[in-house]
Amino acid sequence: MSGSIFGKHFRVSTFGESHGRALGAIIDGCPAGIKITSDDIQIELNKRKPGTQNIYTARKEDDRVEILSGVFNGMTTGTPISLIIYNKDERSRDYDNIKNVYRPGHADYTYDQKYGFRDYRGGGRASGRETAARVAAGAIAKKILYAFNIDILCYTYSIGDICIDETKIDKSKVYENAVRMPDTQAAKLAKEYINSIRKEGDSVGGIVRCIIDHLPPGVGEPVFEKLEAVLSQAIMSIGATRAIEFGAGFDIANMRGSQANDNFRIDRHGNWEKGSNHAGGIGGGISDGSPISFRVAFKPTPSISLRQSTITNDMENTSIQIRGRHDPCIVPRAVPVVEAMTAIALVDLLFSHCLSRIDLMQKILL
Amino acid sequence: MSGSIFGKHFRVSTFGESHGRALGAIIDGCPAGIKITSDDIQIELNKRKPGTQNIYTARKEDDRVEILSGVFNGMTTGTPISLIIYNKDERSRDYDNIKNVYRPGHADYTYDQKYGFRDYRGGGRASGRETAARVAAGAIAKKILYAFNIDILCYTYSIGDICIDETKIDKSKVYENAVRMPDTQAAKLAKEYINSIRKEGDSVGGIVRCIIDHLPPGVGEPVFEKLEAVLSQAIMSIGATRAIEFGAGFDIANMRGSQANDNFRIDRHGNWEKGSNHAGGIGGGISDGSPISFRVAFKPTPSISLRQSTITNDMENTSIQIRGRHDPCIVPRAVPVVEAMTAIALVDLLFSHCLSRIDLMQKILL
Amino acid sequence: MSGSIFGKHFRVSTFGESHGRALGAIIDGCPAGIKITSDDIQIELNKRKPGTQNIYTARKEDDRVEILSGVFNGMTTGTPISLIIYNKDERSRDYDNIKNVYRPGHADYTYDQKYGFRDYRGGGRASGRETAARVAAGAIAKKILYAFNIDILCYTYSIGDICIDETKIDKSKVYENAVRMPDTQAAKLAKEYINSIRKEGDSVGGIVRCIIDHLPPGVGEPVFEKLEAVLSQAIMSIGATRAIEFGAGFDIANMRGSQANDNFRIDRHGNWEKGSNHAGGIGGGISDGSPISFRVAFKPTPSISLRQSTITNDMENTSIQIRGRHDPCIVPRAVPVVEAMTAIALVDLLFSHCLSRIDLMQKILL
Amino acid sequence: MSGSIFGKHFRVSTFGESHGRALGAIIDGCPAGIKITSDDIQIELNKRKPGTQNIYTARKEDDRVEILSGVFNGMTTGTPISLIIYNKDERSRDYDNIKNVYRPGHADYTYDQKYGFRDYRGGGRASGRETAARVAAGAIAKKILYAFNIDILCYTYSIGDICIDETKIDKSKVYENAVRMPDTQAAKLAKEYINSIRKEGDSVGGIVRCIIDHLPPGVGEPVFEKLEAVLSQAIMSIGATRAIEFGAGFDIANMRGSQANDNFRIDRHGNWEKGSNHAGGIGGGISDGSPISFRVAFKPTPSISLRQSTITNDMENTSIQIRGRHDPCIVPRAVPVVEAMTAIALVDLLFSHCLSRIDLMQKILL
Repeated sequence: MSGSIFGKHFRVSTFGESHGRALGAIIDGCPAGIKITSDDIQIELNKRKPGTQNIYTARKEDDRVEILSGVFNGMTTGTPISLIIYNKDERSRDYDNIKNVYRPGHADYTYDQKYGFRDYRGGGRASGRETAARVAAGAIAKKILYAFNIDILCYTYSIGDICIDETKIDKSKVYENAVRMPDTQAAKLAKEYINSIRKEGDSVGGIVRCIIDHLPPGVGEPVFEKLEAVLSQAIMSIGATRAIEFGAGFDIANMRGSQANDNFRIDRHGNWEKGSNHAGGIGGGISDGSPISFRVAFKPTPSISLRQSTITNDMENTSIQIRGRHDPCIVPRAVPVVEAMTAIALVDLLFSHCLSRIDLMQKILL
Repeated sequence: MSGSIFGKHFRVSTFGESHGRALGAIIDGCPAGIKITSDDIQIELNKRKPGTQNIYTARKEDDRVEILSGVFNGMTTGTPISLIIYNKDERSRDYDNIKNVYRPGHADYTYDQKYGFRDYRGGGRASGRETAARVAAGAIAKKILYAFNIDILCYTYSIGDICIDETKIDKSKVYENAVRMPDTQAAKLAKEYINSIRKEGDSVGGIVRCIIDHLPPGVGEPVFEKLEAVLSQAIMSIGATRAIEFGAGFDIANMRGSQANDNFRIDRHGNWEKGSNHAGGIGGGISDGSPISFRVAFKPTPSISLRQSTITNDMENTSIQIRGRHDPCIVPRAVPVVEAMTAIALVDLLFSHCLSRIDLMQKILL
Repeated sequence: MSGSIFGKHFRVSTFGESHGRALGAIIDGCPAGIKITSDDIQIELNKRKPGTQNIYTARKEDDRVEILSGVFNGMTTGTPISLIIYNKDERSRDYDNIKNVYRPGHADYTYDQKYGFRDYRGGGRASGRETAARVAAGAIAKKILYAFNIDILCYTYSIGDICIDETKIDKSKVYENAVRMPDTQAAKLAKEYINSIRKEGDSVGGIVRCIIDHLPPGVGEPVFEKLEAVLSQAIMSIGATRAIEFGAGFDIANMRGSQANDNFRIDRHGNWEKGSNHAGGIGGGISDGSPISFRVAFKPTPSISLRQSTITNDMENTSIQIRGRHDPCIVPRAVPVVEAMTAIALVDLLFSHCLSRIDLMQKILL
Repeated sequence: MSGSIFGKHFRVSTFGESHGRALGAIIDGCPAGIKITSDDIQIELNKRKPGTQNIYTARKEDDRVEILSGVFNGMTTGTPISLIIYNKDERSRDYDNIKNVYRPGHADYTYDQKYGFRDYRGGGRASGRETAARVAAGAIAKKILYAFNIDILCYTYSIGDICIDETKIDKSKVYENAVRMPDTQAAKLAKEYINSIRKEGDSVGGIVRCIIDHLPPGVGEPVFEKLEAVLSQAIMSIGATRAIEFGAGFDIANMRGSQANDNFRIDRHGNWEKGSNHAGGIGGGISDGSPISFRVAFKPTPSISLRQSTITNDMENTSIQIRGRHDPCIVPRAVPVVEAMTAIALVDLLFSHCLSRIDLMQKILL
């Protein structure tokens, strides 16, 4: 598993299993001079905590993050920043029901196939808990984006067939409801829906929307590190994702060129603008200065209490009923994770972009 | 632009502008002992040539690839393989109509924003012609996949709203028609549709399907280089892509867990199988041994002969009518490019996977 | 500071300042199936602890390492291995004498120049204490080398002008004396010499020798990752190094070809051998199967109690007398660090080598 | 062989065998806006051509470099720059005397061990001819350094025991004599010495000195990409190198701290200076603004016409007398190669350094 480092310049290295000693991240390549405290990171981590509403699992994840290095007198020093979150809940539980059985929709089978054995405690590294390290690292990335006035807005677009009305969203509402929807009415319906699904012992999927504002034009490195390519890797590396689309997405396949092309124009005040944004703010893999927009599909939580047929690791047919309380919908908790990975990917590409013109670099070094 | 190298172990570095001297690729990290000739690569390159049918542009791209290094006596030596394709059509044309105007849907504007100026001849590096180097490198990657019995099948799934019937596809037909559809009837309709679109001076988009067969279980490197993450980067780095989905894709967001989970079972002959494949052959970012399946959306060709409003590089409003013959649909020519990028990404992940267990590595070195 | 990750396949990411909360390392790309305990790592860490003899600083560095992830039931799982060493001695001391003064021979000045300010507590990340993380990660690398029967022997070759007699070295003695010399007589002289130097308030440098045995032929990746190139980067990244030489080293510049060339021959038993080893076991950047040998020069400890003239960070002339007890010679403590970095570099190149021939890779995947 | 790409930001990928079709390089990550012509590169390539004096081989290497991409209207565009040098002398010669024999001091044996077979024509990729691609890429790197006023001076320090007098060197003389010595008298002696060595059918080694002037303070990325570490990898990756030392080098091992420490001081004009430069301009792996200085040892040319005992690839004892005219000393031709690799490594580290402080980056992006 040589894939736990993300980025070329701003390199995030994560570690940790669901029920191991700790999770965390090291960030190599964070510039010096950024004000940061562990509270700044804690705020982001708290966003992925289960809400107070009864739609969430009762497991108490009181994640406390600590900064172990790279920050001195409240300021990044330029040296690697190490972040750690100890697992409170490490005690050896009874894993007999999952130790020898491959849970459908989980990575139990593929980890055994790849490595010959697995850390079966709570899903090991394949647990959603791994994303805590992403969110912690993302908090640092967001601080950097703020220094360049770049904003990221993520929210739940739909849960099952309950979809928000995007014509009247209210950004400020996202973290005011447990489902992370910027539409109070849809949020109410979605909560009720999730509750009914849980009562049936089942789960449901959904879609997350992400919008990046004030990204300067020029970000993205053709031809393999185009903005949409790097964002796609970042986002599709999050567990339970199955699809991503930018701008008009799959609908563009059914458009005509005359319709899909976003026309440029200069408005009466002399400002550059586009007549539409089907491309999602990207041209040739490079940001054009308009908002970047993408949507991500998440599958339903694989852990359900309904009985499912499956196999043992001795390759015998069996069935399993997954005990414990599980989120019937992971989408709301995925929202800050999408935000974090977007921030991490953007910072790395921003740094690449700093190196794209000799005249700009001379401003720094001469 | 520091993004023209793909991969960690099998590293493909491409270069070349549409109307520069040449395009090409260097592959660093190709193992020794693979039989390869320039004909093997030429066969792949020919797949992206315009068809003989009148649906395609008349530009004669007689791309001839040459191997400059890394192959001796018909066998890869382990040293970097250099592939070159000279541009026949390099002569200085009249670019006055595009030199100072930003074509809608093209990368003219973003390149100028990023680099301060651009090579405006034929789109420079942002031209679809850049993909020739990808296809050439992909031919080597495919040779490696064959050595492990891994197959990739790509085809046109839809053009506009003309969609193939996937219940009765015939793989052998893909390269027998100009639209790369494995369904003769749909292919006929699609050709007629493209012709009518061209007559209107417009263009149309479509969807490509890719299926990977016989990929061994275990391929994919959590947590950032999961199989779907790396494939997403590889595919979304191709020009004109706007969306990618694996397995059930966006539809999974509306499923319940009891429906979305792919159950494992042992059949009467003792073989492992799954009841469904909504996950697209991937669990926890690692291949499970079943077919990998994904779909990619391509936008309509941005070059259309209908007059479009746009701006000049002096930021004045203007309009443009793009001269010359352009493909009204790039989807058929994208099919071998999707295949090539899939092959390149898979080889890189296969190589990572070779390093995942000490007992397997001892087989090589002891 | 984007340079705290070493390696391509076996990637070691370190963090930590001298007087911060903790130091540590994450290893991404360690194969599954290697038996390891924290004791295995502790043994290596103890090798860099000050000896009991009075030649060393009295600072009690009771470094205890903990494994936070990547090991389950005593076996590596293939996921990232996180190692942590908490600093016992984190309390805020009086740093007033070094806070505003640039100590000669230290990195105070260059860190301020690079980052605008620095963590001045005990040298921050530029402290020799940083090497604890290297040694911890190196312990894992050594476990991997053992799985392939590869041995590394490092020892002190000289301290000042006290040099061991390499014709009669006894490997078992290296860690039996405080100066890490495999020659009891030289060790005795060196200890006396170091003691006399300390009494004068001064310090002294020395040379470390490293010999790698049983490295299979074929290791090293031309043209930029040749065996000697990667080892040079690894070793010269250790603080206080100033020179490295392989085989005959600088002496080769004064040899003739007829003398310098190592002749191959087959001995009476049919075994391959060489008449000499001036090349240090490397041909064209690739191991030839004979012992790899190199020497590294370390400068004297920069912290001395003699008064030195220097400048303040306000760019005023001043002088400084460095308080506290410091090792008058860092060479003995550098020996396990050279060993660790050699192990880390070798593992990474061994892994690259596993991917050099298609027939060998088929052994793993078919 | 996955080692033919150097650098993280300014990435140089080289290819080519001695008697293959061509050699060349792709540079990914060169900023836009640098004026460059093929003549600028040709000037550098000519520096490694054999001199007109009879001390060099008669082989006519009329290397002509062509720029295939990445430059438009005489300016770099930010896209990959591809450089190609066709081999004139590709015709199939008679290689029977080296095809089945392992030449002492050459890489024939190790390449066969690594890859199972080799391109035996003229040494294949292990030939010194590979360095032509390094010099071509280095020419671009030097253009970038000039934009920041950074100078590199390389020259022959010694050939055998003929050493220049460094107290009275004249930079302008380096390329005025065939041995690349900035000391006319030593140059004359060295030429005579090389001629006498050649008459004996033997060869000789030597030492190259490199001095970097006007490098700003702050360059180098602790802890693994320190300035001396990256330079060491870059330089030790050149064929025939055996040792490198910075500043006082190996001599520092025998110094005391009071002697080795370079004291800082402010001179009467308020300028920063150092009392000595034993560290070679580097502190803690970071440049301090004073000149960087290192020396590199090169072994004698392995190809000599004296008969040498060796083995065949069937592992039988034999002897070989190497035909053809070979340089009896490669040191002079190594001088521009050391310069090129130094330039490439410095550019990559300069680019890293641009990303070290948020306030500096804001100058670019805000």
